[in-house]
Amino acid sequence: MSSSDRIASDALRAKITTGEEAAALIPSGATIGMSGFTGSGYPKVVPRALAHRIEAEHAAGNPFKVKVWTGASTGPELDGALAKADGIEFRFPYNSDPIVREKVNRGEMDYFDMHLSQVAPMVWEGFLGPLDTAVIEVAGIREDGSLIPSSSVGNNKTWIDCARQIILEVNSWQSPHLEGMHDIYYGTALPPNRVPIPLIRADDRIGEPYLRCDPDKVVAVVKTEAPDRNAPFAPPDQTARAIAGHLMEFFRHEVARGRLPQSLLPLQSGVGNIANAVLAGLVDGPFENLSAFTEVLQDGMLDLISSGRLRVASATAFSLSPDAAAQLNADMARYRDKIILRPQEMSNHPELIRRLGCLAMNGMIEADIFGNVNSTHIMGSRIQNGIGGSGDFARNAYVSIFLTPSIAKNGAISAIVPQASHVDHISQDVQVIVTEQGLADLRGLSPKQRAKVIIENCAHPEYRPMLQDYFERAKKGAYGLQSPSLPGEALSWHQRFMDTGTMHLG
Amino acid sequence: MSSSDRIASDALRAKITTGEEAAALIPSGATIGMSGFTGSGYPKVVPRALAHRIEAEHAAGNPFKVKVWTGASTGPELDGALAKADGIEFRFPYNSDPIVREKVNRGEMDYFDMHLSQVAPMVWEGFLGPLDTAVIEVAGIREDGSLIPSSSVGNNKTWIDCARQIILEVNSWQSPHLEGMHDIYYGTALPPNRVPIPLIRADDRIGEPYLRCDPDKVVAVVKTEAPDRNAPFAPPDQTARAIAGHLMEFFRHEVARGRLPQSLLPLQSGVGNIANAVLAGLVDGPFENLSAFTEVLQDGMLDLISSGRLRVASATAFSLSPDAAAQLNADMARYRDKIILRPQEMSNHPELIRRLGCLAMNGMIEADIFGNVNSTHIMGSRIQNGIGGSGDFARNAYVSIFLTPSIAKNGAISAIVPQASHVDHISQDVQVIVTEQGLADLRGLSPKQRAKVIIENCAHPEYRPMLQDYFERAKKGAYGLQSPSLPGEALSWHQRFMDTGTMHLG
Repeated sequence: MSSSDRIASDALRAKITTGEEAAALIPSGATIGMSGFTGSGYPKVVPRALAHRIEAEHAAGNPFKVKVWTGASTGPELDGALAKADGIEFRFPYNSDPIVREKVNRGEMDYFDMHLSQVAPMVWEGFLGPLDTAVIEVAGIREDGSLIPSSSVGNNKTWIDCARQIILEVNSWQSPHLEGMHDIYYGTALPPNRVPIPLIRADDRIGEPYLRCDPDKVVAVVKTEAPDRNAPFAPPDQTARAIAGHLMEFFRHEVARGRLPQSLLPLQSGVGNIANAVLAGLVDGPFENLSAFTEVLQDGMLDLISSGRLRVASATAFSLSPDAAAQLNADMARYRDKIILRPQEMSNHPELIRRLGCLAMNGMIEADIFGNVNSTHIMGSRIQNGIGGSGDFARNAYVSIFLTPSIAKNGAISAIVPQASHVDHISQDVQVIVTEQGLADLRGLSPKQRAKVIIENCAHPEYRPMLQDYFERAKKGAYGLQSPSLPGEALSWHQRFMDTGTMHLG
Repeated sequence: MSSSDRIASDALRAKITTGEEAAALIPSGATIGMSGFTGSGYPKVVPRALAHRIEAEHAAGNPFKVKVWTGASTGPELDGALAKADGIEFRFPYNSDPIVREKVNRGEMDYFDMHLSQVAPMVWEGFLGPLDTAVIEVAGIREDGSLIPSSSVGNNKTWIDCARQIILEVNSWQSPHLEGMHDIYYGTALPPNRVPIPLIRADDRIGEPYLRCDPDKVVAVVKTEAPDRNAPFAPPDQTARAIAGHLMEFFRHEVARGRLPQSLLPLQSGVGNIANAVLAGLVDGPFENLSAFTEVLQDGMLDLISSGRLRVASATAFSLSPDAAAQLNADMARYRDKIILRPQEMSNHPELIRRLGCLAMNGMIEADIFGNVNSTHIMGSRIQNGIGGSGDFARNAYVSIFLTPSIAKNGAISAIVPQASHVDHISQDVQVIVTEQGLADLRGLSPKQRAKVIIENCAHPEYRPMLQDYFERAKKGAYGLQSPSLPGEALSWHQRFMDTGTMHLG
């Protein structure tokens, strides 16, 4: 099926144009709401054309920058191209593009990373200002002008509803069998008119399979066949498998104690190799009839579905390796009934996460001895990606779990430090920490009890004595002994890394 | 009406006994779930009798300690007496008693402070272990054995449901007109059986006015006439009035911009003089038909009801000065229809707070230049009270506001610091900071943009140049410039205070 076949609305077929002509409709200073979430379903033509236009304007001596809002991370054709053109002045709410990251960390771009559940509501509230243009990839346009969403939903509903003008990219690389997989809930409101969200199982469909769209606001329709672009996953290494092993043992233990059902509770899993190793562990594990209520579906989730272990997976986006994306597209009809893609204000909604009782599994950069977690800022200042949905899930999970190797950079960095250099998840929201060294079950412990378990179970042996030494001295020299710390020394490991290239002493 | 008149159940009247005999039913090592929330509705006889028993056992050379769970803070007859007797080994989930605080900060007692919405669910989950004894103050016992709750609800429903044995204190100091004010929701469950909570207005009653209680589990009934004990409030000083003034101006501005309705949105207000000043500001302000969905009702809330401005107030407890408590008891019939007291897992539930869109107003110890807030730990290690419900509200509020004087200890401490020495509320959950110097509206700003506004609007002039100097140097020397910080210096203000008694240089 070609792109044209996917545009069943006469009115919108009449608006088919090129990326260049569509990009010309966006002025400097505009705020643009783009589709895209973890490398899926982002527009691939118009942003690049806009980047070319910006480069030309800059070459002519004209300033030209835009504000870019998305669902979450996109791809090189969007964030990469626009950042390379020096065309983004403000980025919201998540990024993982290396060029954007570099510009942000050089102080050349303002970036506001935000809990992904709250992005759409913040736009509805109005304090972020008006949205000028929506640029949305879709899998197709129906005769009535409604839209078949693509491989991510993200904030598309909000961008389409709120933008003054809409540019659509119809991508025929996306499987036509995506149709029917999505669940777009239109029951949201601003307070005082909010009502309970009628979802009680990850399986529930509470909305419509299509995005509503006012055809009069659509100013351009652009065709493309470009694939979503994500890097392949490395197979799980020994460290990742060890982490997954400790976590499987914990789940078995909790089931045996009657604190988790045999089918566990809805899984939330972050992105990355460790998360994939955990999902692989579940393929081989004793748990049946699993469900996922999560943000992103990566390769391991498809394997879990294929294995028959995973009954249903709810998310807002795919984030697949090229191989897995090809496999999914070839076999979409088989997966479609087991997958539901929702707007991110639903996939990540605290009301739903707490009701369902998710098992939240997220990665991190570092944790301190009390279990405060830094997910975002290396050495406290350099942002890696953003908080994303980790807070939405960790705060409302039935069990909130953070996973990391105990060391990084060949041992120059310890993931367990005296004090987190930046805090995204406070100790109360961090119930289990897992490294390849072991698992710390922190539930119900006081800060000092937590410190003992984290140091003993999770720290790397190379850093454990240093942590023990610090903790013992903190218990003598702190201002108070609830959470003993030495402010003059607490962040010295980070400063030492900045000065010498390692957190190791001497 | 005497205490005996308040015990309408023959079966339970037969169990009337003394505090000493009731306390004798509690063995060393027991986990006790006590009633009590912010100095209201805590048992006043049995804990003191237990403290005497513990002192006698200690004098005889016998170890004797218990684990104490409550709703939140209690009074000197409970926390104070048991801590003075050195009888508490583990305290959960909140404390403001000075003797407990001192023991915790000397490292002599384990204390786990937790989001108040999550305490009951954690107990249901089971990992905290079994609850041996519930000691619950009530305003009366009905013929069928159900209980008329007292001046707080807290976790009483959970303690009564989960404890192996129950001791009741019937307090005839509490107004008999409390009957009918409470709303005890019995629709909770563990996942996967949770359903939406059917509350869509602060006014809604979704449960029953009484606590269910299995009379067979009741092992003792003790009578008392002792009052709730809270300190009087100081009248708002100039600093508190200035803070309240900035906030009123913000509310007027948001209403004028159409971002808040004229009746605002349900108010959440922490405890203390500044909160009371804000409530006083609302008495004199332009807003009508207000509602409150909050944790605690302090004096100012009663004044707002009396003024006719506040239509309804939902909370889990009163926290009143002696004068206001006397006024309330004398005039309960007038207030009763406008006040609803709920279990704390409902008053603080994220699902409800986010649905209703609360305006969350909480105090703090310090904020850093990026707006990360420390609510609990002085100099990063010495706990003051606990996180309480501040996280429940701040994370889910429509607007999350933190209030503090810009300096403390006659200027020796700045409330705005380079880096928070402990983080309870991450920058994404801190949208507005107010000091007597001014208000910082941080919504939609990047970290560096936030720093500029916080330093300029909120810092005290004595500290502002030091903060500006630090921020400028951090923008040169940080590892990355998303949130520029200097790990070797970021906590030096706290170390300096510990070393010299002031954060000031030289």
